[in-house]
Amino acid sequence: MNNPILVEVLRGPLVESRHRGAVAVADADGAAVLAMGDVTTPIFPRSAVKALQALPLVETGAADRYGFGNEELALACASHSGEAEHVAGVTRMLAKAGLDAAALRCGAHWPMAQSAVAMVARTTGEPSALHNNCSGKHAGFLCVACANGIDHADYWRPQHTVQREVRAVLEDLTGAELSEDRRAIDGCSVPTWAIPLQNLARAFAKFATGQGLAPERARAAARLRAACTHKPWHVAGTGRFCTEIMQLFGARVFVKTGAEGVYCGALPELGLGIALKCDDGAGRAAQAVMAALIARFLPLGDAERAARRGGGGGARALDRTAPCRNRRLADREPDQRV
Amino acid sequence: MNNPILVEVLRGPLVESRHRGAVAVADADGAAVLAMGDVTTPIFPRSAVKALQALPLVETGAADRYGFGNEELALACASHSGEAEHVAGVTRMLAKAGLDAAALRCGAHWPMAQSAVAMVARTTGEPSALHNNCSGKHAGFLCVACANGIDHADYWRPQHTVQREVRAVLEDLTGAELSEDRRAIDGCSVPTWAIPLQNLARAFAKFATGQGLAPERARAAARLRAACTHKPWHVAGTGRFCTEIMQLFGARVFVKTGAEGVYCGALPELGLGIALKCDDGAGRAAQAVMAALIARFLPLGDAERAARRGGGGGARALDRTAPCRNRRLADREPDQRV
Repeated sequence: MNNPILVEVLRGPLVESRHRGAVAVADADGAAVLAMGDVTTPIFPRSAVKALQALPLVETGAADRYGFGNEELALACASHSGEAEHVAGVTRMLAKAGLDAAALRCGAHWPMAQSAVAMVARTTGEPSALHNNCSGKHAGFLCVACANGIDHADYWRPQHTVQREVRAVLEDLTGAELSEDRRAIDGCSVPTWAIPLQNLARAFAKFATGQGLAPERARAAARLRAACTHKPWHVAGTGRFCTEIMQLFGARVFVKTGAEGVYCGALPELGLGIALKCDDGAGRAAQAVMAALIARFLPLGDAERAARRGGGGGARALDRTAPCRNRRLADREPDQRV
Repeated sequence: MNNPILVEVLRGPLVESRHRGAVAVADADGAAVLAMGDVTTPIFPRSAVKALQALPLVETGAADRYGFGNEELALACASHSGEAEHVAGVTRMLAKAGLDAAALRCGAHWPMAQSAVAMVARTTGEPSALHNNCSGKHAGFLCVACANGIDHADYWRPQHTVQREVRAVLEDLTGAELSEDRRAIDGCSVPTWAIPLQNLARAFAKFATGQGLAPERARAAARLRAACTHKPWHVAGTGRFCTEIMQLFGARVFVKTGAEGVYCGALPELGLGIALKCDDGAGRAAQAVMAALIARFLPLGDAERAARRGGGGGARALDRTAPCRNRRLADREPDQRV
């Protein structure tokens, strides 16, 4: 099907570019609150499900064993910018399990943050696997293995116990069957499973509320959500959309970006989960759509209104649509539901 | 209208993302050789028309007055990566006109090239206007003003003599009327004019052949084209698509990227111009489409085949489609025309 145009990019008097995509907003029972475009065809959620992939870290007791607090748990859910404190945090996580960067199999890339690129250039000259935006997730996987006496060497392979457990968690939360013909390799080497947006939205509603989850899994979800919303800088980094939105809204909003135009999120007080993908993979458009969805569904409190007027990072994040213009989302009333 | 899907991005067993767009290929008379999608609605060509914007630099005698060779002329047509030799070349251009970086009004941004970012970080710590990918174009504008005794202070404003001359050149080559309601501000502060793809394709056919141009303009076009195809590194930079394609094909192909998913090009031996834009502004898709168009229209010579087999930069550029897959272009015979 033809997904609708969700975002227009403006230049002077004209629309310069256009982004199509699909959006699903659902509750924990899977009831659709909003569905735009194709929400039933499986898409790769990429890093947008890192918080779900981190559930075994808490559930298996690994996080407790290594004394992880909010920063470490947020890093396990993060696509971080490779800034100094991100690197230091992941190094600490690995050290707790008796490991170092050599155990990571995510590969190295230059940090997302320009300031971090400059720092690496001035110091070591080359980025390491610790700078990979997924290094916290990988450290989490390694910790699950080490804390539970599992050989960690092949922790990234689909058949490894850790990845099999991650797959089972994703199936539980999304209600989707993750058959082998929906499996691909993510940018950091671990499996990524194609899942319909409507299932992903439901999964994040369950993540937000605990509804439909076993008690231990619900507690783990609440703990990871609290970690991310308390330490949003560790989930992304300076100036990033995920960070600024969660800094502004605190526990009212959870958001997580994924490569190729994916965003997932949760609005706990409404019991809703959100999942969206832009057809073309554009992150700028995914941010604009997520900002519009938050503005539509979540009445701003006094604190958020004041912060927005003050023009801080959260305001920038909410106004991230400029120079993009949301189509079809902006022209509906905030509380209007399909 | 709904532009067709031109490029699919693959991950494992599935199509992960899709790029729509429009393509025009035309001869110097404006006859369409290929038209896919909407080629009649004006789009902003952005940096893809820098070689046309540089015509006054040659035509007014400024390039001769300052003794510019292929490197300087290629830089005037460039979206360069801000590598050391780009910066040095633009500095030389400005010095010939008695100016320095302070005269540039393009603004500063970090270099496109990661290696250049690292070098700036290690040395000055901050990029200058010389690192702006458009600094060569701006130096060219300044040289036109200085060589012709025109106050250069406001060289970037639409009403400045230089920009009025650029507008006249664009109208001459494209045959499009550049009314004020089609004007916006480009990323580097100068005007950008919205022009239909079919007109842009015709303009580059004229640029490639000189047909339909006054003799002096035709000579200027040939000189700029020769400069770019002789010094393709100066048009873009290390590992860039424009550079690698022109390194591989030499004078047989001229290509130039523009922001927001635009590519223009010329195939002189066929008398054809090319203009394309991806709806979503994706540069990766624009490259994939241009690579497919070149492969479709231009029979590879022995040298290009050997280079491609050798796996050098040109081969990488032609194979830039991976992990993208061209749709609708790849399934036609190379010499099939609509």
